[in-house]
Amino acid sequence: MPYINIKVTKENGEPTKDQKELLIKGVTNLVSEILGRNKASTVVIIDEIDTDNYGLGGKSISEIRKV
Amino acid sequence: MPYINIKVTKENGEPTKDQKELLIKGVTNLVSEILGRNKASTVVIIDEIDTDNYGLGGKSISEIRKV
Amino acid sequence: MPYINIKVTKENGEPTKDQKELLIKGVTNLVSEILGRNKASTVVIIDEIDTDNYGLGGKSISEIRKV
Amino acid sequence: MPYINIKVTKENGEPTKDQKELLIKGVTNLVSEILGRNKASTVVIIDEIDTDNYGLGGKSISEIRKV
Amino acid sequence: MPYINIKVTKENGEPTKDQKELLIKGVTNLVSEILGRNKASTVVIIDEIDTDNYGLGGKSISEIRKV
Amino acid sequence: MPYINIKVTKENGEPTKDQKELLIKGVTNLVSEILGRNKASTVVIIDEIDTDNYGLGGKSISEIRKV
Repeated sequence: MPYINIKVTKENGEPTKDQKELLIKGVTNLVSEILGRNKASTVVIIDEIDTDNYGLGGKSISEIRKV
Repeated sequence: MPYINIKVTKENGEPTKDQKELLIKGVTNLVSEILGRNKASTVVIIDEIDTDNYGLGGKSISEIRKV
Repeated sequence: MPYINIKVTKENGEPTKDQKELLIKGVTNLVSEILGRNKASTVVIIDEIDTDNYGLGGKSISEIRKV
Repeated sequence: MPYINIKVTKENGEPTKDQKELLIKGVTNLVSEILGRNKASTVVIIDEIDTDNYGLGGKSISEIRKV
Repeated sequence: MPYINIKVTKENGEPTKDQKELLIKGVTNLVSEILGRNKASTVVIIDEIDTDNYGLGGKSISEIRKV
Repeated sequence: MPYINIKVTKENGEPTKDQKELLIKGVTNLVSEILGRNKASTVVIIDEIDTDNYGLGGKSISEIRKV
């Protein structure tokens, strides 16, 4: 039954459809193994964030990547 | 004053503009009736999620819809 | 399948257990009626927020209630 | 180390890239000054919301702007 | 750099401190392996939700557990 | 009209009530100045997270603080 939200920047065509499928499957299995909760109702939502919109240490990832 | 966030997959052109207007109006009214809180400052935000990015039971909705 | 998150201040013992049950049932039904999505996998999570931690117009609800 | 999420409607080309850079820098600095936490690991994520998808007082911002 | 939020009900003393440590380590490693992103700045936040506040299919987990 | 969510660990009695009031006021003013949006309907919600539940680089803040 857990709910998991993953926010990751969209860069160079990634995450791909395959990577997202792996994330959904892998995180669902891992959380289920650790907590022993129901896998069937586990929800995973992936948000792909523009590098202009994700900041770390006061700078956007777009700015950080320029260096 | 409550804040409500609705995450729903985007499928076959839905939710439409009209459905979103109904969601905003309906959820605001319902929450206000149950809790008796201020309707004017109630915020509703709808996130439309790609079916590749919404997982249920370890599979994306894209995969689930294929079956 | 939608996911709904409701954030509401905790004030004078509210929302009560009954109000929360009504919120879960009511919002699930409403969203299902408007969007025609699967009710069984609809998730509703309610976060009860301390009035010191919820701000509106630059003041906490604790400060607003004092006036 | 704090994590900050800002949700704002996308209107008339705003927030611009420059405004987002200012938001990330400004909010990171402000939160760091008030709380004295580590700036390097502070995360800011900005979500730009369509005016059809942001509701206030039971109406979408699209509807509110029409008046 | 990804950000991951896990929402899970608090039931019978679980998740324990050990389970939460395993979740943080496991999810960080898994996401890093799949996406090849920086592990050092990966953030995981776990929210423990009261069973009265987590709804599935229109009923709280408290009600579902009674059956 | 923006909505801002701040997640910060609860450590040594901080954030205090005063720090939270400063966060709400400061972030509301800053976002309003940068974006020119309506201050009256700006919402700020602060989530205080247990150090066991906030992970950075694969370890909880509780573990990181031990070193």
